[in-house]
Amino acid sequence: METLKVPVGISNRHIHLSQEHIEALFGVGYSLTKMNDLSQPGRYAYEETVTLIGPKGTIPGVRILGSARKASQVELTRTDTHKIGINPPVRDSGNIAGSPGIDIEGPKGLVRLNQGVIIATRHLHMSSEDAWKYSFKDGEYLCAIVPGPRGGILEKIRVRVNPNYTLDLHVDTDEANAYGLVNGQQLDVYSTNDQFQAAR
Amino acid sequence: METLKVPVGISNRHIHLSQEHIEALFGVGYSLTKMNDLSQPGRYAYEETVTLIGPKGTIPGVRILGSARKASQVELTRTDTHKIGINPPVRDSGNIAGSPGIDIEGPKGLVRLNQGVIIATRHLHMSSEDAWKYSFKDGEYLCAIVPGPRGGILEKIRVRVNPNYTLDLHVDTDEANAYGLVNGQQLDVYSTNDQFQAAR
Repeated sequence: METLKVPVGISNRHIHLSQEHIEALFGVGYSLTKMNDLSQPGRYAYEETVTLIGPKGTIPGVRILGSARKASQVELTRTDTHKIGINPPVRDSGNIAGSPGIDIEGPKGLVRLNQGVIIATRHLHMSSEDAWKYSFKDGEYLCAIVPGPRGGILEKIRVRVNPNYTLDLHVDTDEANAYGLVNGQQLDVYSTNDQFQAAR
Repeated sequence: METLKVPVGISNRHIHLSQEHIEALFGVGYSLTKMNDLSQPGRYAYEETVTLIGPKGTIPGVRILGSARKASQVELTRTDTHKIGINPPVRDSGNIAGSPGIDIEGPKGLVRLNQGVIIATRHLHMSSEDAWKYSFKDGEYLCAIVPGPRGGILEKIRVRVNPNYTLDLHVDTDEANAYGLVNGQQLDVYSTNDQFQAAR
């Protein structure tokens, strides 16, 4: 099997907002200001941030990422959720049913989200061409080998295939800090855990 | 090979102080107040805390752990070190040569540590009896299997053998948060990476 090397992209806590919530937080008719492009085409960071208010604490300066979503979604790390006192599940982006809510504060208003806070499953964005070339399927899990003094094997990496995706392994800051990963670092990924199954 | 199950113990940031530094921070002749025992015999948490002052930020309420050391040592997570602007290496406890320093503030004084800040290597405390029974050697590396949605394999776990040690796998809060570990959780550990070497 040919080995695929993928670059690491580290995601900090962030929020995706619905158009309705953008207007509730920033004012009717407000349009967010694009700050920079992200690794995936059509996705970008906005200049605006919000404050998250949990039962035990607040997190100011939480970056809004776009484009706009049908339902608002907050992606935090476990470190964040301990700090503000909520206990969200590890989930794929978009799968928010039954997840905890949170209060969101913007300059013009407050939104009480009834659900939508998750800790994101680590995932690999991959083009259809790469998926075909390396025999990966959308939705399957990969594992990656992490070298170094905090090394190990990152399992349960969800593959996300789309014709427009750019190869990028998204982990959050907790994972980056624990495994000693830096942005752009190249890791070997494997399609199956065949070589590790004996240990399960 | 018989599998050994070990309980996870999660270490938060903490500091070990020399007697000289205890007195510089808390006053001449000061004696710290024991708060509770830790998992290893003769080790305990004190009621007193200090503030760490780095180039980019401070961390208040850092717990002092005992007993007293010959040289003061600060054990932080990568999340902490990003916050206060220093870049310590991942090291075994006690191996502080060439590590960065930090300013420590107590109620009666300030200590400028020239070196002593590390991110601790994850390690497994083990009694001599267990080491003999399971054929582990002091100083060798183990790996552990982590189940769950943030699962994977924790490699580079340093074994520390002592007649008085109690079995305990020490990871820091970054590792616990990234791998989804909780205190007391039992993990399978393996003496060698034989079954994973094919991937290296």
